[in-house]
Amino acid sequence: MAQGTLVELGGRARAAAIEVARSSSAVRDDALKVAADLLVAEADALLEANAADLAAAGDRGLEPAAADRLRLDHGRVGSMADGLRTVAGLDDPVGEVVAGWVRPNGLRVRQVRVPLGVVGIIYENRPNVTSDAAGLCLKAGNAAFLRGSSSALESNRAVASILRRAVAKAGLPEDAVVLVEDGRHQTAVEFMQLRGVIDCLVPRGGPSLIASLLEHATVPYVLDGSGNCHVYVDAAADLEMAEAIVVNAKTQRPGVCNAAESLLVHRDVAADLLPRLRRALDGVTLVGDAATRAILPEVGEATDEDFATEYLALELSVAVVDDLDAAIAHIARYGSGHSEAIVTADLAAAERFTNEVDAAAVVVNASTRFVDGGELGLGAEVGISTQKLHARGPMGLRALTCVKWVLHGDGQVRR
Amino acid sequence: MAQGTLVELGGRARAAAIEVARSSSAVRDDALKVAADLLVAEADALLEANAADLAAAGDRGLEPAAADRLRLDHGRVGSMADGLRTVAGLDDPVGEVVAGWVRPNGLRVRQVRVPLGVVGIIYENRPNVTSDAAGLCLKAGNAAFLRGSSSALESNRAVASILRRAVAKAGLPEDAVVLVEDGRHQTAVEFMQLRGVIDCLVPRGGPSLIASLLEHATVPYVLDGSGNCHVYVDAAADLEMAEAIVVNAKTQRPGVCNAAESLLVHRDVAADLLPRLRRALDGVTLVGDAATRAILPEVGEATDEDFATEYLALELSVAVVDDLDAAIAHIARYGSGHSEAIVTADLAAAERFTNEVDAAAVVVNASTRFVDGGELGLGAEVGISTQKLHARGPMGLRALTCVKWVLHGDGQVRR
Repeated sequence: MAQGTLVELGGRARAAAIEVARSSSAVRDDALKVAADLLVAEADALLEANAADLAAAGDRGLEPAAADRLRLDHGRVGSMADGLRTVAGLDDPVGEVVAGWVRPNGLRVRQVRVPLGVVGIIYENRPNVTSDAAGLCLKAGNAAFLRGSSSALESNRAVASILRRAVAKAGLPEDAVVLVEDGRHQTAVEFMQLRGVIDCLVPRGGPSLIASLLEHATVPYVLDGSGNCHVYVDAAADLEMAEAIVVNAKTQRPGVCNAAESLLVHRDVAADLLPRLRRALDGVTLVGDAATRAILPEVGEATDEDFATEYLALELSVAVVDDLDAAIAHIARYGSGHSEAIVTADLAAAERFTNEVDAAAVVVNASTRFVDGGELGLGAEVGISTQKLHARGPMGLRALTCVKWVLHGDGQVRR
Repeated sequence: MAQGTLVELGGRARAAAIEVARSSSAVRDDALKVAADLLVAEADALLEANAADLAAAGDRGLEPAAADRLRLDHGRVGSMADGLRTVAGLDDPVGEVVAGWVRPNGLRVRQVRVPLGVVGIIYENRPNVTSDAAGLCLKAGNAAFLRGSSSALESNRAVASILRRAVAKAGLPEDAVVLVEDGRHQTAVEFMQLRGVIDCLVPRGGPSLIASLLEHATVPYVLDGSGNCHVYVDAAADLEMAEAIVVNAKTQRPGVCNAAESLLVHRDVAADLLPRLRRALDGVTLVGDAATRAILPEVGEATDEDFATEYLALELSVAVVDDLDAAIAHIARYGSGHSEAIVTADLAAAERFTNEVDAAAVVVNASTRFVDGGELGLGAEVGISTQKLHARGPMGLRALTCVKWVLHGDGQVRR
């Protein structure tokens, strides 16, 4: 597609969004299924485009982790197709009557769920996000306005071309998916400021993308922030359960936002729990406060910075706390408002923890790793919001919709 | 109260917010009722403070409309007290279980409504907003962090002092209400950028405040935007009903955002409707397009700017449209996404209008003036949002809350 200015591209997405919003969910699901089939059918061409990106990345000396994110293979293309089919099979959030009643004057009031319009997605060099994010946007009745990384341009172009042909085949305008091909940094900033074009911006990427969004964005956005998550083991905890939960929360997948980064242990159980956890967390680097190191002398000293750090790795900061209040205060000071867990058999402690810890998710006697759209049963996950407005915690398709008031009368006027 | 920096003041509100969030609604309602009683009991002192503001305003040559907004009298103070009592009588939105289910692994999932924390209110020179807004914030379990106009400083100080004494009397920290006394413009800008201090910013004021917010705010906010509202009279309309609705929407209270600013008439009924509306809208200045002026030659010409204008006065722009599509296109072009009405007996036209017009509220066969929290039965109104995220349309107390995920397990870990 010939590329115009960002505003022109956005205008095309806006025009398409009106038609997408009017379409039936059957048509949109059809588009997703056609796209899934095309992804598989055209996998070779897709991998060729990806190879060109990888070659260019090699020339620029892209670091191995970034190159791995960029790389597609038949398995990954298959996963992208499966993802679209899964989303197609979910319930359509659009049209849901959120609330409704009749006023004393006979006015019938409904609050109805409707698409947002144009959802902007800004992301890094994972080409799979092109299809994942566009699939979610389309499912919820929106046009997808995509701005990926220049290092994935050829891959993104190939995926977007497939998506555009698929929506057209299903009878929707191809501009229901618009990819911005201009990879300059300034374009990303302009993209974040397309007020009146982008109804909601969703970032998919790491801390630097989030920081840039916070600095530059003037369009409404949902923030998929960082997770400095704690597990607090209370005095009344079942220590076997505590051990299993801490190990799972820290090690089951350490690189994700709902993994635990910090352990708080009530002083009454520290001498029992810490040594067994030290063994169970074999391979995890621990740093601890003075009370922890009195029990585990081989552990390094935890600084303030450690307690504030989202390691996203096999590292864990540990503090011994005097009581529940101290645990809550520690979390208030260092937590990022993502997911916070308590292990306890004490009902009052569980109640206070869930009420008083200010986070998107509070967890009693389970791993923080359950704070995830799929695990909670939301179907697809748009992300995990650490903001309070619009969406908080795991975001399902509803996060890509808004509500509209629909009033029906028979001539009512206001006195 | 001695005033520190904005961050210090905000820190005090944050500390108080934790206690407000933990308080029972009975305690918060008690605070509101005590404040209402104190407002009435101390009305004379309040009017004295207000007289000082008015005198200073007179010296600075404040325009009469602004001086009127600033002026308090016994009636207005009584209304402020009544407003607090009304809010105290509403249902508490906090604690509502929004959704809940059990996962196959036994994990119990609930989404619970909780306070936002610190709600920032930035407003112009209406001292009643100090008590109205703080009352709404407290009711929904938040601390109120208030930044009013310097021209109302003495009045706001007196009101805030009453509120602070009332919350203390009810057993809450007095910093549940914190008034910023620094009236400089730069302080307003800094206030809008207190990320990490203000959980949600609510502006209460006119277009210049909204414009400043859009330019400067980096904290999350809900936007109470403008309303360029239309009434479209369809070919199938009952013309008597149409006349009553147009007159009501335009003239019942022309200075508010849900008043109609523009009339669209289907060409099939224009020759019948427009002359009778011309008579019924006696005292309203009409401007029209060519087709309107062919029927009403005495009417002035409507420019593009007229159609884009929120008059907030007894003025109305009028266009004759060829069909429903043209009406929807006109609204898409000029509307502000607030409230849009159709008058029709045609079910298909009503369906298409409500589905395809992108606005916070769409109204069939009733006046746009019903798009109001009180009229829709929401109890108190925080404002009318023209944004799509978090809250859209009339905002009740729920707009001052967010949700939190609460997960209960019995040792679940993720595989």
